[in-house]
Formats: sequence, structure tokens, C-alpha cells
Amino acid sequence: MRRFCTLSAAALMVALASCAPQPLDLEAQRSALMQTSRDWAQAAGSGDLDRIVAYWADDAIVLPPDQPAVVGKAAIRDYVAKSMEIPGFSVTWEPEQASVAANGEMGYLIERNRFTFPDSSGATQTQFGKAVTVWRKDATGAWKCVVDTWNTNPTEIVLPLGK
Amino acid sequence: MRRFCTLSAAALMVALASCAPQPLDLEAQRSALMQTSRDWAQAAGSGDLDRIVAYWADDAIVLPPDQPAVVGKAAIRDYVAKSMEIPGFSVTWEPEQASVAANGEMGYLIERNRFTFPDSSGATQTQFGKAVTVWRKDATGAWKCVVDTWNTNPTEIVLPLGK
Repeated sequence: MRRFCTLSAAALMVALASCAPQPLDLEAQRSALMQTSRDWAQAAGSGDLDRIVAYWADDAIVLPPDQPAVVGKAAIRDYVAKSMEIPGFSVTWEPEQASVAANGEMGYLIERNRFTFPDSSGATQTQFGKAVTVWRKDATGAWKCVVDTWNTNPTEIVLPLGK
Repeated sequence: MRRFCTLSAAALMVALASCAPQPLDLEAQRSALMQTSRDWAQAAGSGDLDRIVAYWADDAIVLPPDQPAVVGKAAIRDYVAKSMEIPGFSVTWEPEQASVAANGEMGYLIERNRFTFPDSSGATQTQFGKAVTVWRKDATGAWKCVVDTWNTNPTEIVLPLGK
């Protein structure tokens, strides 16, 4: 009985210890999300459509300015492919601020972006923008973008203290 | 000793039971977030600045099209107050889709919105838009908006199957 008691008390302690919340290192989570954004920007510059589209979740929604919502990965793939066909088109971005939920499941970024595209005379125009991307971790633990929206910004930098 | 043992075993069971994940009713969480957005839209129509501003978190960021980021509640308050001074200005919105993290701490909405404002001739123009708002629960369990951005949309409805 004493032995059972000891075991039972020990099991109680183990159970309580395993109960204790195991907080994620949120700074590391935010850094990983920022790095995912940077890796994605590099992919965007590569022109590799499969590599670019892989960062979106299957049910992702892209909300571009002045255009209808683009819903789901197949539609997003078409949207990106058409953008890539425009001579002089390019887009790049840099994350400025990340936030991640305490359970590490959802997060969002504020990013600055820069589009180039030809104007009516064919000259390349540059447009600065600010983006919000919302992310969820998939079953493998990889961040996937679920919402992606942006609008124009008067300057290159979005947040004065952006990090 | 037997009594202690029984208590210990009971405590173990209680500890393990309290360990079990208690999943939130995510549908209820999403509904509450949608309702918060609707309540906020109603507040926006009331012209009560304090009531309107109360929906943002203290460190919220508003990212309006073609304008710089508005960072923090004091700056947002000024931004909203100035908007309200424009004759004919109004904004309203309706949430179309909500998503909430499993721990109920963070969520986001896709919303349709509608601005009215005077054009150069003084006539009132209406502009449809699509918005993404990101939310966090505060210490009282109330949803507060932490990121608020939008851009123009060709039509009133954003998501074809918006709910």
C-alpha cells in the first residue's frame, strides 16, 4: 500500500507538472514568421510559380486593391501567373512587425511592399505599399498565409519604428 | 494512510481531468467576433467618438489606403475625429467571414465596407471596399481590434460565398 501511495503521489506530481502551461518562445515564433516572409519574398523574385504559391494555404484569400477577392489556391495561382506575364512587373516585400498567438497557431505580419509595373508609355513605375498577411501553422508546423491584402503607401517605410 | 492514498488517487484523477484540453466552441467564438464587428459598425453610425474608438486596442494599427499608417489609439482617435469632420463622410461595414485561433486569443475578419464622401463638386460619392481586421481578446475577454486595413473593391460583396 505504501508503494502504491508513493507511486500515486509521484504520478500526481508528474500529472501536475505536465499540466503546467509550456509557453512557446514567442520571440522565436515571431522571428520564424518574419523569416518565412523574407523567404517568400526571395521566392517571389525567383519567378518559380510553384515555389511562390506554396506559401499560401489551400483556402487562402488574396484581397488586392481595386480588384475582386481571389479565393483559394487555384485562383491565386492563376492570379500570380497572370501578374508574372506583365512585362516589367515585379513585387517584393519586407516584414516590419510580427505578432503570434500564445499557442503558436495563428499570427500576422505588417509588411512594406514595392511593386513595379509599366505605365501607359511603357516606362516602369514603382509603387510603395503596406501589407497585412495573416498566417496559420499547417499540420507540419509550417506557416501558411491565409489572408493577404495590401494598399498603397505614400512612403517606402510603413511603421516609423518598424523592426 | 488509506485515506491519504484515496485522496491522492482522487487528486490524481482531478489533476488529469483538469489537464484534458477544453476546446472552445469555435463557432460561438466566430459568431461573437462577427457580432462585435456589427456592434462596432452601429457605433460608427452613432457619431460617438469614445464609443467608436473603444473597439481598438491601445496599440492598434490602422492602415488606410494611400495614407500613412496610424499607430496607437491616440493617433487613431485623431484620425477618426478628422474623418467625422468631413461633411458627407460616413463609413459602415458588415463582416463576411471570421476565423479564430483554437485558444480563442486571436482572430480575424474579412469585411465588406462602404464609404461615402464628397467629390470635388460636393456631390456624395459611394465607394465599396474590402477590409481585414485582426483582433485579440483583452484581459476582460472582450475582442479588441489590433490591425485594421482595407482597400477599394469593384463590387459591394467581397466573398462570393460570404457568410
